Amino acid sequence: MATKTTPQTLKGMRDILPSQMVLRQYVVGVLRQVFERYGFEPAETPALEYADTLLGKYGEDADRLVYTFDDRGGRRVGLRYDLTVPLARISAQYGDLPKPFKRYQIAPVWRTERPQKGRYREFYQCDVDTVGSTSMLADAEVIAVATDVLTRLGFGRFSVKINNRKLLIALGAYAGVPAELAGSLYRSIDKLDKIGAEAVREELGAAGVSSDAIGRLFELIGIRGTPEAVLGEVRRTLGADERALVGAGELEEIVGYLADLGVPESTYEVDLAMVRGLDYYTGPIYEVKVEEPKIGSLCGGGRYDGLIGMFTGQSLPAAGISVGLERILLVLEELALAPASLGKTKTTVLVTVLGPDTRAESLRLVTELRRAGANAEVALGAEKLAGQLRYAGRKGIPYVAILGPEEVAAGEVLVRDMVSGEQRRYPRSEVAAALLATRDAS
Amino acid sequence: MATKTTPQTLKGMRDILPSQMVLRQYVVGVLRQVFERYGFEPAETPALEYADTLLGKYGEDADRLVYTFDDRGGRRVGLRYDLTVPLARISAQYGDLPKPFKRYQIAPVWRTERPQKGRYREFYQCDVDTVGSTSMLADAEVIAVATDVLTRLGFGRFSVKINNRKLLIALGAYAGVPAELAGSLYRSIDKLDKIGAEAVREELGAAGVSSDAIGRLFELIGIRGTPEAVLGEVRRTLGADERALVGAGELEEIVGYLADLGVPESTYEVDLAMVRGLDYYTGPIYEVKVEEPKIGSLCGGGRYDGLIGMFTGQSLPAAGISVGLERILLVLEELALAPASLGKTKTTVLVTVLGPDTRAESLRLVTELRRAGANAEVALGAEKLAGQLRYAGRKGIPYVAILGPEEVAAGEVLVRDMVSGEQRRYPRSEVAAALLATRDAS
Repeated sequence: MATKTTPQTLKGMRDILPSQMVLRQYVVGVLRQVFERYGFEPAETPALEYADTLLGKYGEDADRLVYTFDDRGGRRVGLRYDLTVPLARISAQYGDLPKPFKRYQIAPVWRTERPQKGRYREFYQCDVDTVGSTSMLADAEVIAVATDVLTRLGFGRFSVKINNRKLLIALGAYAGVPAELAGSLYRSIDKLDKIGAEAVREELGAAGVSSDAIGRLFELIGIRGTPEAVLGEVRRTLGADERALVGAGELEEIVGYLADLGVPESTYEVDLAMVRGLDYYTGPIYEVKVEEPKIGSLCGGGRYDGLIGMFTGQSLPAAGISVGLERILLVLEELALAPASLGKTKTTVLVTVLGPDTRAESLRLVTELRRAGANAEVALGAEKLAGQLRYAGRKGIPYVAILGPEEVAAGEVLVRDMVSGEQRRYPRSEVAAALLATRDAS
Repeated sequence: MATKTTPQTLKGMRDILPSQMVLRQYVVGVLRQVFERYGFEPAETPALEYADTLLGKYGEDADRLVYTFDDRGGRRVGLRYDLTVPLARISAQYGDLPKPFKRYQIAPVWRTERPQKGRYREFYQCDVDTVGSTSMLADAEVIAVATDVLTRLGFGRFSVKINNRKLLIALGAYAGVPAELAGSLYRSIDKLDKIGAEAVREELGAAGVSSDAIGRLFELIGIRGTPEAVLGEVRRTLGADERALVGAGELEEIVGYLADLGVPESTYEVDLAMVRGLDYYTGPIYEVKVEEPKIGSLCGGGRYDGLIGMFTGQSLPAAGISVGLERILLVLEELALAPASLGKTKTTVLVTVLGPDTRAESLRLVTELRRAGANAEVALGAEKLAGQLRYAGRKGIPYVAILGPEEVAAGEVLVRDMVSGEQRRYPRSEVAAALLATRDAS
């Protein structure tokens, strides 16, 4: 056939091997369960979209990170950059979907970003969004979903930061930042955590914001306290600006709903310094962070009442949150929060084949085990027992069912616990139940 | 922001809306369960690969169907065409993976094919493969997996066809088809089901195969009977060709293992007219078909001992099967085999909000239900009850929990069965259990 090809993964892309998949599948399972618990339903969109659909939605910086190319039919196409714009497209395209349309999607997205630790060119997003409701309850629900996910995954400490684009606009106006500089104002504030207050002040100054305005800004975005206290201060300072009053009112409403939805007050705060990068947000925005390890936000989202209107011409309100699977996995590993019972493999037992004479019996045994509900592998070769035990050990399979001529004759199976090294004989008819019981107990 | 964009899906691509997702997720769940039952483990590879990785593996016809383009770094890249070549790549790249490496992957692939009924440019493949074993038991296991999947999904009648590329080579030689025409020979035989024997004879004649050779060919590929009978006839006719003897021996071995693995004899047959299209198969090949509806093969696969060697230069044997999710869904729908309990949504109950005064109570109720394990949605607006019932009906939510001021005062909830229209009052503390019981029973 053809010449030899070097086996290699593209820069910024990853292969996920079986031992890493166990934890990923566990987290995705929790996400799906929580999303569905809140009445969100799954939907899927293609990886490829018309480039027109994707571009002009995220802001200029982000647009440059979309993978685009010409397909064979000469269409300009692109790989999806996130799951929100495809959702906006289908919401516009299928006008008869019952509203509110509550959907979740767990799928990869692609960005031509420079690869860094924990940043890839292909990564999963896990999104829940509600389309067709202006109610702040939609915002509160997606925040509750994120809180629930992290709690179930065992995250003890995390903080949900809530802000509102309307407050940010009023804030800029109050500080005297000219409207044309508002964009760089948000981008600079967004870096506060990363580069520190001094660097942000310098950046704003360099962008042409007066030092007086910068001072007023920092006074406001530094306010800490209960949501009531922060929003009270906002009302006192920015009360002359209608946008600030509307924004503060929306956040108060969300905070009230969060209490009714059972979200503990200790988990969230109003943080006027929190800015989400994407252009399409129009109202409340939210972000979830952990202090340890330093890894940026685990979840982020907000309300984007204008995005769907970019397709239909008619505004259709929407709010949603994106849960960052890759970062959650990094934190779970770093803090060793993964349940110990997960192990390295989903396979419970390896059935040996010790020779051609006993192979048929081994195949019958593995079939019995599978039918009883155990994940069971059978040796494909008939090498020495030591090799088969070594294989099970390397893969992390917790039990080996040994079936030699003696065991076949006695109607028994010798089960080896690969962790303790203990071996125990079972009547053939009892092996499956014994293995399933240990698996359930682990 | 930007100008209005028309919301549209690319030609040959699909959006999968929530009501269609319920059945898809059910089938994918069965696939994963069966794959893991047989000891296959999940792995994932990126959607994008170096074009060099993908091209030159499938045959010239197929190569033209790969989506390729230049990325921003000037690399020639492509979207994966199947899951087998990426598996071959990782098997070559991670040489220290324990062997046999038994992996499954359920993921979309992309092809620039002309869209037709049931044929899309993006579709899911669900693959199980064993890398690193020459044993025919690896082949038998993936056939058993496919059989198990279809049986669990309720397929009463399907047939597994088994053949061997080695037999096909011997067959061509026996009929006197020159080696350089072997490719078009297989491609023509492959169309037997679609275009009929007469058209295949004509095509072969036009390709330069003598009518005498065509006659001998059709005698052999027309043989029907038990595997023993068919292979006996092969031995009698082609016994002088070593390749035929090896091929027949491999199929006999597979048939023996299938019996030990509990695969009913009635489900499989040796069919010398079955040819799989891809270039990379080297030994046994397998295909699963249903007679009704006429839809082509539901699963297909085979042994490809040379493919991984195209990366490493060293041969690494492998065998696997791909289950066609899209076609399985079509058949399940056409034959109405989907479990009735699946419904249109995973949501069990909608909790009403009948006015601002009872909203907080409704939020507390929906939180109780979710914590008890029910998938529960709460009305986001506070429109009239009729509108909320209509919404639940359109989405197919089976129950509505009605909570008006009277119910709140009495500590009760009125539950409406959306199918029968019956309503029943429950003490607040008993609603969750009642809803979960009906859901389990359905």
